[in-house]
Amino acid sequence: MSAAYADRLIEKVRSKRTPLCVGLDPFADKVPALFGDLKNDAASVLVKFGTSLIDIAAKHAAVLKPQLGLFEQFGELGYAAARMLVEYGRAAGMIVLLDAKRGDIGTTAEGYARATIGARPGFDADCVTVNPYMGKDTLAPFVDMAKANGKGVAVLVRTSNPGAGDFQDLQVGGAPVWRRVAEMLAPETQTLMGASGWSGLMAVAGATYPEEARALREAMPHALFLVPGYGAQGASAKDALAGFVATAQGLEGGVVSSSRAVTYPPAAQTAKNMSEWRAAIDAAMAVAADELRTASAR
Amino acid sequence: MSAAYADRLIEKVRSKRTPLCVGLDPFADKVPALFGDLKNDAASVLVKFGTSLIDIAAKHAAVLKPQLGLFEQFGELGYAAARMLVEYGRAAGMIVLLDAKRGDIGTTAEGYARATIGARPGFDADCVTVNPYMGKDTLAPFVDMAKANGKGVAVLVRTSNPGAGDFQDLQVGGAPVWRRVAEMLAPETQTLMGASGWSGLMAVAGATYPEEARALREAMPHALFLVPGYGAQGASAKDALAGFVATAQGLEGGVVSSSRAVTYPPAAQTAKNMSEWRAAIDAAMAVAADELRTASAR
Repeated sequence: MSAAYADRLIEKVRSKRTPLCVGLDPFADKVPALFGDLKNDAASVLVKFGTSLIDIAAKHAAVLKPQLGLFEQFGELGYAAARMLVEYGRAAGMIVLLDAKRGDIGTTAEGYARATIGARPGFDADCVTVNPYMGKDTLAPFVDMAKANGKGVAVLVRTSNPGAGDFQDLQVGGAPVWRRVAEMLAPETQTLMGASGWSGLMAVAGATYPEEARALREAMPHALFLVPGYGAQGASAKDALAGFVATAQGLEGGVVSSSRAVTYPPAAQTAKNMSEWRAAIDAAMAVAADELRTASAR
Repeated sequence: MSAAYADRLIEKVRSKRTPLCVGLDPFADKVPALFGDLKNDAASVLVKFGTSLIDIAAKHAAVLKPQLGLFEQFGELGYAAARMLVEYGRAAGMIVLLDAKRGDIGTTAEGYARATIGARPGFDADCVTVNPYMGKDTLAPFVDMAKANGKGVAVLVRTSNPGAGDFQDLQVGGAPVWRRVAEMLAPETQTLMGASGWSGLMAVAGATYPEEARALREAMPHALFLVPGYGAQGASAKDALAGFVATAQGLEGGVVSSSRAVTYPPAAQTAKNMSEWRAAIDAAMAVAADELRTASAR
């Protein structure tokens, strides 16, 4: 039995002294032509772009978050490239959180759990994002798979998109739906609790809503947070850490994801060669890692 | 511009005189050994099992529903097999509704839309299931892709699983969350409206909750329903049609999905050879098609 996912994650975050999570999002119109022709040679370009980013990301950040939908748009070769990059990221020492937002029930949920945080021939990622709309039935197969394999599950609670409130903010007896979701999830955090006191049942808590993040922390005191929306989506480092808690190591309690700002910085998009591209990515990741390091330091 | 998806679907359902939708669910422990060794030769077994089912299903039903999670558990070869079976099903004249339950926003939602109801190298299915938890942001990219390609989108509203009510039934100002979801979706049905008066913005309405299906029909009068839970999950043909409406052609308004009862009937599971297996599947599909035909006849 491997160490609990929560403990592995928090240990790596501490060793990097930054909660930065690098988002790996192969936007079809943004991957630089340096890597080849994405339209006609998707698999090789995706793997080259991804491994090049991971080589640099592993220096700066503890966690990698591939966005599966952006791989799937290239069909099964994109899907296969994503699986290879999950392996590559783990081999580089990163925690790999697969952003797949799966959600189903029973045997199908077991299928998705096996496909994402199981083992070969699936993804063997460290953690997967899950959508709670179908109820606790959805979560159990993922949590069971995570428990058995020392993995984690990150449940969408309050997302960072403009329309997040359409359904998540509907008021149920004086509290929003997302708060009820959090309350129902809270007892389940025990199942994936680590020796660190943090649980591998993570909550997705959008950085664009810092007040909600604080309320969510009250409802789920042990859940590690996955905070999207930092950087390009407009949230500051301080906002992004709103749901973290003060410890002897500084603010702690999850990871903060940045994608565009660290993987498509302007200097990388205009780079003339791989050396310039690498320097631009390295600089952008260093800035993001350091902003979050400073904001979370004691 | 191809004919609206809703019109294509309703036309095929009328020509078969049954709303039966055959679920294609490759459960790892149920695919008969006749098809080979699923553990060691997944891709070939999945394709052989799937094409054999489709050959028979195309005689009895208008619609095929592959459950993507059960393919993904076999990794990228499973994913590729699913894509091939979507093509095979369409070539056999069936409407293929990919049960993928995707849900994301912005560019990632566009990626999933392209991957499922776009075109090669993605799935090119006729319709995809989508989870609304992240709000209307989630739906727009799918609806846009559907509109552009003559495809459909089936949104989870009230699902059929035991825990469906955990979040869907939370009361918001006197009505459950799922009803609010339906009310917010209703105006969007206009975007995918067909000449038939039915919309390709479908609602998933569990057969195990006939009263909810009737209430959902009130909230979304033009949405075609995808009704899961018929057969193995215990709902009767009459229950399954609770959200349908009386027309000159009989009860109309969607499709009713059956998987285990028609793809793993006991006689098929004990078949000694392919001929026996085919006969068992043919008989089970004929029974289900006919039950729904009788229940929906004028």
